[in-house]
Amino acid sequence: MQTDLHHDLSELKSLLGSNDVDGLREFCDTGHPGANAEVIAQLEVPEIVEVLSRIDLHTRTEIFAHMEIETQMEVASTLRRRDLVALVSTMSHDDRVDLFKRFPEEMRETILPGLAQAERDDILKLSSHPEGTAGSIMTSDYVTLSPDLTARQAIEKLRQEAPDKETIYHAYVIDEHRRLLGVVSLRELILAPGGRKVQELMNSELIFARVEDDQQDVARLISRYDLLALPIINGGDKLVGIVTHDDAMDVAEQEATEDFHKSATVGTLPSSIKEVGLTLLFRKRVFWLVLLVFGSLFSGAGIAYYEDTIAQYVALVFFLPLLINSAGNAGSQSATLMIRALATGDVVPRDWTHMLGRELLVATALGLTMALAVSALGLMRGGFGLAIVVALTMILVVVAGSVIGMSLPFLLSRLQMDPATASAPLITTISDALGVVIYFAIATSLLSMM
Amino acid sequence: MQTDLHHDLSELKSLLGSNDVDGLREFCDTGHPGANAEVIAQLEVPEIVEVLSRIDLHTRTEIFAHMEIETQMEVASTLRRRDLVALVSTMSHDDRVDLFKRFPEEMRETILPGLAQAERDDILKLSSHPEGTAGSIMTSDYVTLSPDLTARQAIEKLRQEAPDKETIYHAYVIDEHRRLLGVVSLRELILAPGGRKVQELMNSELIFARVEDDQQDVARLISRYDLLALPIINGGDKLVGIVTHDDAMDVAEQEATEDFHKSATVGTLPSSIKEVGLTLLFRKRVFWLVLLVFGSLFSGAGIAYYEDTIAQYVALVFFLPLLINSAGNAGSQSATLMIRALATGDVVPRDWTHMLGRELLVATALGLTMALAVSALGLMRGGFGLAIVVALTMILVVVAGSVIGMSLPFLLSRLQMDPATASAPLITTISDALGVVIYFAIATSLLSMM
Repeated sequence: MQTDLHHDLSELKSLLGSNDVDGLREFCDTGHPGANAEVIAQLEVPEIVEVLSRIDLHTRTEIFAHMEIETQMEVASTLRRRDLVALVSTMSHDDRVDLFKRFPEEMRETILPGLAQAERDDILKLSSHPEGTAGSIMTSDYVTLSPDLTARQAIEKLRQEAPDKETIYHAYVIDEHRRLLGVVSLRELILAPGGRKVQELMNSELIFARVEDDQQDVARLISRYDLLALPIINGGDKLVGIVTHDDAMDVAEQEATEDFHKSATVGTLPSSIKEVGLTLLFRKRVFWLVLLVFGSLFSGAGIAYYEDTIAQYVALVFFLPLLINSAGNAGSQSATLMIRALATGDVVPRDWTHMLGRELLVATALGLTMALAVSALGLMRGGFGLAIVVALTMILVVVAGSVIGMSLPFLLSRLQMDPATASAPLITTISDALGVVIYFAIATSLLSMM
Repeated sequence: MQTDLHHDLSELKSLLGSNDVDGLREFCDTGHPGANAEVIAQLEVPEIVEVLSRIDLHTRTEIFAHMEIETQMEVASTLRRRDLVALVSTMSHDDRVDLFKRFPEEMRETILPGLAQAERDDILKLSSHPEGTAGSIMTSDYVTLSPDLTARQAIEKLRQEAPDKETIYHAYVIDEHRRLLGVVSLRELILAPGGRKVQELMNSELIFARVEDDQQDVARLISRYDLLALPIINGGDKLVGIVTHDDAMDVAEQEATEDFHKSATVGTLPSSIKEVGLTLLFRKRVFWLVLLVFGSLFSGAGIAYYEDTIAQYVALVFFLPLLINSAGNAGSQSATLMIRALATGDVVPRDWTHMLGRELLVATALGLTMALAVSALGLMRGGFGLAIVVALTMILVVVAGSVIGMSLPFLLSRLQMDPATASAPLITTISDALGVVIYFAIATSLLSMM
């Protein structure tokens, strides 16, 4: 897919071995910094530091910024203080805050005094927002314009500030109190006559978010309106940052991964499954597994309660896994459909009654189909009575499982909890216990009548 | 979050009721077309057509393009041919192809003759790519430059073409055979001295994809390298389109939704869960549910085979749900972790052995912990012998479930199938059958010895 760009790790190693400084520089200056970062990150930490020390600050920062945050941390902790300060000063404002937040306390205290006052303030301000909020993913690298500039003056300002800013394709128009008045794109500025005022060109019907808004809502707005960046304002309606499209994409991906893991009762992992520590992985998995063991006791207790019925009609046991699994599977389907729809904003909490009606229809149809499939088996193994019991149970447990599965995410969302907690294993455990009781209750009453 | 932008549906309805054309125009010209499209889409189809007919073609197209494709289809089918042709001509190249592909054959044949030759060719070319490929999501709305233009000439060309192009922030440099030579950003053009040649400014170490590449790989490249757009080339290395960041975000979201649904054995849904037809929803859910019913027969058969053991030690049944569910739950965790890691590219197929080693360690630790939790219960309910049987079974089934869960996605990927097919219900069904056999085999041999 990117054959032209493929730099070989061995080429890099030989350049490093022969101490070919010009070669190293050329290697790093050619191609996308993200691709180069991937190759360089394969080296040992001292070698990475060696390569970075050979190249100019701008390229060094770009390559460093594209590395995984774990690698950044390892490299940062071996750099000399002066080099680290230079690197941090040059990084984009949101990237450096992400790194800064990971630094241990003493490291932060070593770096801060080396930075200019404005940068120090910027880092402290950006790092003050809680994880998961719009504030925690925004950057302060954007261009602001005064509404009475002309298009020509505005373009000149964008040009001057371009080297330091993350994006110059949108500029934010603010008044003297930094209140957001509008947004204007470089495209509009370029197309307009040079003398036109920014205030005539800007779009003042803004889409924005507030610092305390959920980062997932920010990503959703950027996705829905195909934005390059979304302005973020604080309680006083002042512009304090922007979130760019690439960060929104990262957030959407990260949130999808978290929901995915939760759907199988795995807690939030701080990094890649390949890198995460085994002890942490154990801890993120064990909680729900043990909890669900105790949940399964209800099914066990249900079975124990109906021991006499089981002893009398041993053929019943044959159908037990099949019936309770079907309830769990139908319930998992419904839960997963709702969790994802709530996460993408496709469905909102007040849609519950509407969705419930639809679910009842579909679940009944599913239950009938599956009852048909198993009643033949029931006839074969235990005759007419068993067939009736099994078919009736199937319809009831599939409908019950589905309704629980689709309702639980809504309930959790209403309780301000994460709908993704309604994981497949949780739904399965609940449906199992319910299925055991429904099955043996029907069996006891119907078979004793025959 | 966007209070300033909130247009009330009732305001729109009253404007429509009083036939206030100026009011309707102002309504549609103010604010983001995406937000307006959402409000207008709430109306009945004839009313939507009524609103759209009142406003100028440019605004009409922008609003129309932001509606869901189902709404677009309904509106398109009631428009007069001439109006539909005008709309299709004005839409962005990728959006109109998506719509065109949904049209029934006779509708396509009505529209095509009304379009200019170049547009007709463009639609036919773009619509020829199979769903799911880079070609199917690319657009032909981009600016190309010749390498010997100066920066000033290039900016002038971008300005002239801006009204018709989806993005002017990157331009693609091609030779006389349309072979891609490099990419240059508007930022670089603006910063450069006006007389500098494009070929000196452009970045020739390109990141690109081929028309036949998977759309998910395209989205991954755009995300990894924080790109605004990715150029797409054909077999002859000619530039044929670009994929923009917003379309990449849509693809990533859509692929995550599909994987999510598959993880609970729901097939790919063509539209929102709120809108999709109930019959279709039924069909997308029933296949695996019925298949897994027959899968569960293995567990049932296993139980039936050990009927004598069960009759002899009835206390065994109490622990059955707990043990087989634990295996299924641990297996679902492992499968989900791997499915997501393979989807994001975090893990690649050749990592299997490495991941297997890690899994064995974590699963053994999980199995031991859970064995500890249940052995106390075993002691209470059935004495020392039962405690040993239950604990030993727990360790074995948790490890077996985990290894199956983590390996199946790799195996499916090796077989060119979707790893997400290793759904939680499938893993649960397999682990169940295995769990029944392991449990009763251990019980039969150990308890008979005591």
